[in-house]
Amino acid sequence: MRLAELSERSGVSPATIKYYLREQLLPPGELVTTRRAEYGEEHLRRLRLVRALIQIGRMPVATAREVLVALQGEGLDQNSRLGLAMGALPPGAEPDPEPDDPATELARQQVAIMAEELGWNPKELPVAAHRTLVAALATLARLGYPYDAAHLRPYARAAVRIAESDLDLLDEYDTALEKIETAVALTVLYEPVLLSLRRLAQAQESHRRQHGRLRPGNSGEGAV
Amino acid sequence: MRLAELSERSGVSPATIKYYLREQLLPPGELVTTRRAEYGEEHLRRLRLVRALIQIGRMPVATAREVLVALQGEGLDQNSRLGLAMGALPPGAEPDPEPDDPATELARQQVAIMAEELGWNPKELPVAAHRTLVAALATLARLGYPYDAAHLRPYARAAVRIAESDLDLLDEYDTALEKIETAVALTVLYEPVLLSLRRLAQAQESHRRQHGRLRPGNSGEGAV
Repeated sequence: MRLAELSERSGVSPATIKYYLREQLLPPGELVTTRRAEYGEEHLRRLRLVRALIQIGRMPVATAREVLVALQGEGLDQNSRLGLAMGALPPGAEPDPEPDDPATELARQQVAIMAEELGWNPKELPVAAHRTLVAALATLARLGYPYDAAHLRPYARAAVRIAESDLDLLDEYDTALEKIETAVALTVLYEPVLLSLRRLAQAQESHRRQHGRLRPGNSGEGAV
Repeated sequence: MRLAELSERSGVSPATIKYYLREQLLPPGELVTTRRAEYGEEHLRRLRLVRALIQIGRMPVATAREVLVALQGEGLDQNSRLGLAMGALPPGAEPDPEPDDPATELARQQVAIMAEELGWNPKELPVAAHRTLVAALATLARLGYPYDAAHLRPYARAAVRIAESDLDLLDEYDTALEKIETAVALTVLYEPVLLSLRRLAQAQESHRRQHGRLRPGNSGEGAV
């Protein structure tokens, strides 16, 4: 296919495709005349992966290039390849700078307790996500909202069930590049879905409890 | 207490407290001399609520002032007060501008189907969160990642369980202001917790499946 068709089928503009070619994120097409190159299905899959990393995942170009090179490494299994791409993804929520104060130390301990409870392998915890989690918990403590393992449990269990359904989705995709592209894109694109669903569910649950309380003879005590 | 103690107990700097006083987000203290004011526990609770709305929730000052005035309205029940504060909270994820294209129309329909499945009251869906959800789903479709009600279900169920545990937490707080403050603060502060837990859980689940697949004689086909 020509560049115009590659653009149409990938949803990436011709100017951006040319930029990716110059940056060597995308291998050159096959020259059929001095001015015209042909692109194949492999280009399309690779382009969609580049789009997932950079446009959707907001990965810096230099990082994306490193990831793409690393993905070509021999002897990597599916999990390592996925881990490579996912681990390089900037966190959806910006972590605070992490001072080594007692709140951070406590957060690290609580995460370790939770990970053990869940049977998680400490070696398989992506560094960026782990750092974001520790920073977020330390912020909670510093602002005077204490938490413990019991507070984290419902969140962790929900995250596990969501991760299972995320991984199920990948089974629908055939090729290596498609699986990685989809994992990166859906991880990022479902983040606002999850956060807004939580807020909608909170409103419903608050409404439900208020009703539940009002029905059996409201003492007036239920109002905030 | 004096302003210095109010600052220490709230974690809000004296300069910021003075700013809130000037902006009438906080009622003035009781003047004991011409140069010294005394503040009470009610000031502390109010200040913590203001901090939750503005510093944690990133609500614009003008919006926070409107919320604080509205919260003083007579005849509002707990659910309405909570809904007022939560509904004015800017979304954790910035929604895309929402063009009225087929992707948006489809997203609205899918959200309506999901809400009915969950028995949600359409009148109790906060506007901002609903808009963020519709925009996020429309983005998925526009980028060529189709979804349907079945894809949303695990996210929605997880959100419902999280919301139940969020609401349970509020029971630990006594006063009206404390409940609203805590609801706002924990909603925002647990967002990076939830997102990073999902990424950690994905890595664990990917690792688990890879192992599960490798054990019974790896055909080499499992690698991405």
